[in-house]
Amino acid sequence: MSSTYGENLKLSIFGQSHSPAIGMVLDGIPAGLPVDTQRLQEFLNRRAPGQNDYSTPRREEDSPEFLGGILDGFTCGAPIAAVIRNRNTRSGDYANLRDCPRPGHADYTAQIKYGGFQDYAGGGHFSGRLTAPLCIAGGLCKQWLEERGIRIGARIASIAGETDDIDLDPLHPQLDLIGKDFPVFSPASGERMRAKIAQARTEGDSVGGIVECFITALPAGLGEPMFGGVESRIAQIVYGIPAVKSVDFGAGYACAYMRGSQCNDAFTVENGTVRTLTNHSGGILGGITTGTPVIFQAAFKPTPSISRPQQSVSLSQSQIQELSVRGRHDPCIVPRAVPVVEAAAAIAIFDLILGNTQTDRRK
Amino acid sequence: MSSTYGENLKLSIFGQSHSPAIGMVLDGIPAGLPVDTQRLQEFLNRRAPGQNDYSTPRREEDSPEFLGGILDGFTCGAPIAAVIRNRNTRSGDYANLRDCPRPGHADYTAQIKYGGFQDYAGGGHFSGRLTAPLCIAGGLCKQWLEERGIRIGARIASIAGETDDIDLDPLHPQLDLIGKDFPVFSPASGERMRAKIAQARTEGDSVGGIVECFITALPAGLGEPMFGGVESRIAQIVYGIPAVKSVDFGAGYACAYMRGSQCNDAFTVENGTVRTLTNHSGGILGGITTGTPVIFQAAFKPTPSISRPQQSVSLSQSQIQELSVRGRHDPCIVPRAVPVVEAAAAIAIFDLILGNTQTDRRK
Amino acid sequence: MSSTYGENLKLSIFGQSHSPAIGMVLDGIPAGLPVDTQRLQEFLNRRAPGQNDYSTPRREEDSPEFLGGILDGFTCGAPIAAVIRNRNTRSGDYANLRDCPRPGHADYTAQIKYGGFQDYAGGGHFSGRLTAPLCIAGGLCKQWLEERGIRIGARIASIAGETDDIDLDPLHPQLDLIGKDFPVFSPASGERMRAKIAQARTEGDSVGGIVECFITALPAGLGEPMFGGVESRIAQIVYGIPAVKSVDFGAGYACAYMRGSQCNDAFTVENGTVRTLTNHSGGILGGITTGTPVIFQAAFKPTPSISRPQQSVSLSQSQIQELSVRGRHDPCIVPRAVPVVEAAAAIAIFDLILGNTQTDRRK
Amino acid sequence: MSSTYGENLKLSIFGQSHSPAIGMVLDGIPAGLPVDTQRLQEFLNRRAPGQNDYSTPRREEDSPEFLGGILDGFTCGAPIAAVIRNRNTRSGDYANLRDCPRPGHADYTAQIKYGGFQDYAGGGHFSGRLTAPLCIAGGLCKQWLEERGIRIGARIASIAGETDDIDLDPLHPQLDLIGKDFPVFSPASGERMRAKIAQARTEGDSVGGIVECFITALPAGLGEPMFGGVESRIAQIVYGIPAVKSVDFGAGYACAYMRGSQCNDAFTVENGTVRTLTNHSGGILGGITTGTPVIFQAAFKPTPSISRPQQSVSLSQSQIQELSVRGRHDPCIVPRAVPVVEAAAAIAIFDLILGNTQTDRRK
Repeated sequence: MSSTYGENLKLSIFGQSHSPAIGMVLDGIPAGLPVDTQRLQEFLNRRAPGQNDYSTPRREEDSPEFLGGILDGFTCGAPIAAVIRNRNTRSGDYANLRDCPRPGHADYTAQIKYGGFQDYAGGGHFSGRLTAPLCIAGGLCKQWLEERGIRIGARIASIAGETDDIDLDPLHPQLDLIGKDFPVFSPASGERMRAKIAQARTEGDSVGGIVECFITALPAGLGEPMFGGVESRIAQIVYGIPAVKSVDFGAGYACAYMRGSQCNDAFTVENGTVRTLTNHSGGILGGITTGTPVIFQAAFKPTPSISRPQQSVSLSQSQIQELSVRGRHDPCIVPRAVPVVEAAAAIAIFDLILGNTQTDRRK
Repeated sequence: MSSTYGENLKLSIFGQSHSPAIGMVLDGIPAGLPVDTQRLQEFLNRRAPGQNDYSTPRREEDSPEFLGGILDGFTCGAPIAAVIRNRNTRSGDYANLRDCPRPGHADYTAQIKYGGFQDYAGGGHFSGRLTAPLCIAGGLCKQWLEERGIRIGARIASIAGETDDIDLDPLHPQLDLIGKDFPVFSPASGERMRAKIAQARTEGDSVGGIVECFITALPAGLGEPMFGGVESRIAQIVYGIPAVKSVDFGAGYACAYMRGSQCNDAFTVENGTVRTLTNHSGGILGGITTGTPVIFQAAFKPTPSISRPQQSVSLSQSQIQELSVRGRHDPCIVPRAVPVVEAAAAIAIFDLILGNTQTDRRK
Repeated sequence: MSSTYGENLKLSIFGQSHSPAIGMVLDGIPAGLPVDTQRLQEFLNRRAPGQNDYSTPRREEDSPEFLGGILDGFTCGAPIAAVIRNRNTRSGDYANLRDCPRPGHADYTAQIKYGGFQDYAGGGHFSGRLTAPLCIAGGLCKQWLEERGIRIGARIASIAGETDDIDLDPLHPQLDLIGKDFPVFSPASGERMRAKIAQARTEGDSVGGIVECFITALPAGLGEPMFGGVESRIAQIVYGIPAVKSVDFGAGYACAYMRGSQCNDAFTVENGTVRTLTNHSGGILGGITTGTPVIFQAAFKPTPSISRPQQSVSLSQSQIQELSVRGRHDPCIVPRAVPVVEAAAAIAIFDLILGNTQTDRRK
Repeated sequence: MSSTYGENLKLSIFGQSHSPAIGMVLDGIPAGLPVDTQRLQEFLNRRAPGQNDYSTPRREEDSPEFLGGILDGFTCGAPIAAVIRNRNTRSGDYANLRDCPRPGHADYTAQIKYGGFQDYAGGGHFSGRLTAPLCIAGGLCKQWLEERGIRIGARIASIAGETDDIDLDPLHPQLDLIGKDFPVFSPASGERMRAKIAQARTEGDSVGGIVECFITALPAGLGEPMFGGVESRIAQIVYGIPAVKSVDFGAGYACAYMRGSQCNDAFTVENGTVRTLTNHSGGILGGITTGTPVIFQAAFKPTPSISRPQQSVSLSQSQIQELSVRGRHDPCIVPRAVPVVEAAAAIAIFDLILGNTQTDRRK
């Protein structure tokens, strides 16, 4: 009941950081949807480590093998299953984690929950590596949404307090402006962020940041009331990404400081179509899309793995113990998290579209 | 698939603002749990309107009638069903909403989604009134959690920019300090908030705010990996409360501005038990409770209903039309939202407890 | 997790035999579907007791009150909620059931499961009376299916070994021939069945029988592979009807005695459309509809409540005790079960139709 | 939404007959449960073909590779994932199935549902080969049930009208008597069944049969009311096995021919424990286990693939066409279906046990 998601599609993610493979099963997808594996690989590459100076030099090959569900470039109606083999075999790097949990990681809670039976190597099932199969599912959903004209793009809104200087028009976000390699709008802001990351790395520390995601050309009327609203569905899956500590929509937190006369998005008519003059709601009213772009932000805490010594405990001896996390880790996961946030959003939106019973009423 | 929640318990909420009744069914609850209807009524009264100067003078009686599931003061294993009759019959107050949607409300999206068949009176199924049955379910779950020593309490963290001056110790929040009527820690802060609300009312406007919720004495090990984590489950239901635009956990948004060495909660040993020195994580690591209090915040936008004129459109004539929302509405829903947030948290936590398979492994 | 059903719609049934009311919530129904409450009442009357010589003389009024979800004769998109008040208040009739369980009833298993907290009066939540809200939901789904040309009709196939003499053409069942009051094709067979029921009543005993259900004009391609097949979905809900001990499809049990060359339904072409020459499969191949009528049978055990003395036990004294079930009970529930089987089928089929993603693939 | 099962555990099955692999993900399993892979392999071998004279001579190696969820011989709390590579690559054997559907198979319905995009080779996702991953999941659940003393065993009750002569005591079935290779109680009956199979093979035809399954030492009180009853849950998954056309419990169909005084299982007291004198109910009352063995029967239609010519149609030319199914196929799948039925039962029962909230009520 843990690593599955979806009301209409059913996504099941499996594997651990050092198990033979990680992978996913995506059930409930209609037959006949095209699958472009090369574009999928390009999408996965955006998440893969070892490609630039701000991420870990570890080398992972995130090339999925499809075991079922796809035939001659189209979905065939059967569940889509894909695996990625883990190249890094179990090593001694993590041997002591069983006794001395890393602060900020799930080592301690896994120990309590699974009573010592958990796979502790590399964080096991809690590893950020599990976002790779999430990106397989999300990359596919993203393609199918694009077929309907729906686009999803995310940018780094801030890292270590350095914000992307360029504001997007929340009514007409120009997603093409987002940089591919380091997805910000303002190259100067991007430079400042990279400098902060480099500095943290030098100091054996890490930094966090905020990812902002835009979904455009969504039909109005998507989503269900109460617990099936777009916010509920997106928040549920985005909080499944490791290190996310905040999810908000539209003006989000800032709404709490506005007056109603300011926060309400006034309606207008544009070429015979109802529009809003602003987009504080993030394209969602009553949990249902307005047709205006859906915008949300996810805040990521700094990478918990830092080489600087930290205070932990020895569980066996029940006493304080200093810990230095060895190995090579991203001083900032935010750049690699950008496609993961897009993937999560794509899955949530495609799930909502599959379940949209709106058109039935006129049959 | 919309107004239901839960993995182990199943909550189904029904009714519209002006339908004969609103209510809920809560299925999957074990038999033999005590039900104190008087304490439940006291809890519901905290949400009920018309009890003080900052809420609407409309009078509602939120006295649930239990139709099944409870016998002689205990749950009997059958689904628990309760209804609250709506006293306000359908009136002319809302007749024009069908054509002229209120900004910030679900009028427009409901029109698109339901093609004119929706119940538009008083917001229909999207009305804040639907939080009353949520509070029935949540009030019951709260009692059952208290039986296990788990306490849930929320406060107003801020209204209209006025914050509750007193910081709570995130490791040992003293929930008893929360005021009952206007739930803040600092009476002086409360006065400033009330003043801001009164001012907004005078100006025909409204204000928003932030509710902070604490859950204490949770066992460590609760929650599931990935999409079944405590954050995912709480966020899903809290985003089901109308007007919520942000949900974050622990230090939340602020984590994005911290260094890892600062954000990580160092472990220590206290009387032989593992504890953390800080609680930036909000009591959750890898989606699983650490045993430290779970803390989250929900930001509410200002009440969309304001008497001040707003720009809307006539859907039938496809042209701009000025709208003044008549009737009496809360200039700030935050005080009444406090028990609703507690209710949502109680449902999410009790659901997780029912599904906790942790103990099975040692059988 | 018990009394809810559905993948796309969500049905939640509540109440006990002697609680204030019984009822149902049906969520996930599109807006704009017409609701004919008079036809619904006629359908519910088919299940109601006290209308003829072969059922209990108890008088129940199964008139649902709709609390939400319906507006001006159409569904409004909100969950549909309806209740039926229980007229029979708790009486002394059932006081001793707590200690001395009725053979064939759920008294004993409820006692074990709920530890004495269960509502034992009249069978509580296990009472056949709970099929009334099932018929509200099913009666509505039946109307919506009929709008699409899909018809569901069931007959008594046999009672106490007396079979309905007239075989239906499984490719073109003439549902109009089914008698309304006592739904058999052959009046003579009906007379023989009634005689057997009357005889059982005279002897303080009861009889069982078989209901056969036909669903016509279903589109081909409905249903999902493996556990989401039409058989799985229908069987799950039909086994939710009290007293059902067997569910089979098409030739059912008899398939086990056939050769493949006989059992396989050969394909043919009829006016350019693919048809089968026989219908041993019951209109389902691989869990998916062929377009041929879906046919299934449900076998009901005899009413467990009989006035004739039976051997039971005193749970408190842990010794054998003779039991005579007092009160007035149907000597045969099969005639009243016919609309219940139709209702269950209608819910399962409408759920499948709502989830049918078939058409999406060509968009 | 198709190939997933479970309320508390989540089973997801994937793959097609000729895709690179088939497999399963089993989520929601507690950590610390032992896994005996050798016993699992022995269980899988019972289903594997090519081991005896009555099944297809095709050779399959059903050796699962575990990709995650198991560590050092125990479940680790992460989802359990396993795959079996398909050795038989796509061949020309099935090329014409796309146009000329095999009677009794899902070829036609898949064509309608998936619009020609389906994987038609070897039946694709509808192939009986998909019962191999079902047996992985079921074989594991069976081990975990045995740890609790719960045993599941099935026998061939009949093939081609030849019944296993020896009746089992439904109160105390001696599962050890079941033959391993050809699971019947009476060797003589087994011989007659084999003869019937051999005869059908010689004649290019096939035969069906009935599998009877016994579950012993189940605790009383398992199962939920209405749609969550043991019958509903078992029937849903057993109908997911290809070729099943009937599922019944206890005396099943025969109940419809009994009097209440005969069908009701009278209670008695045996060494201070409540027991029943008979077991017509199949160990289930009100959907909940009585503590008496659960017994059910599943009827399998004859293998649809027969070498004898059959009438089919050419879909492209919309005309009748004769079809001889080439390749080597089991003239009777019943012997190989026996472990599959056990696997399905084990999954359903373990799912119920995981969700059993019974003990919570006394905390």
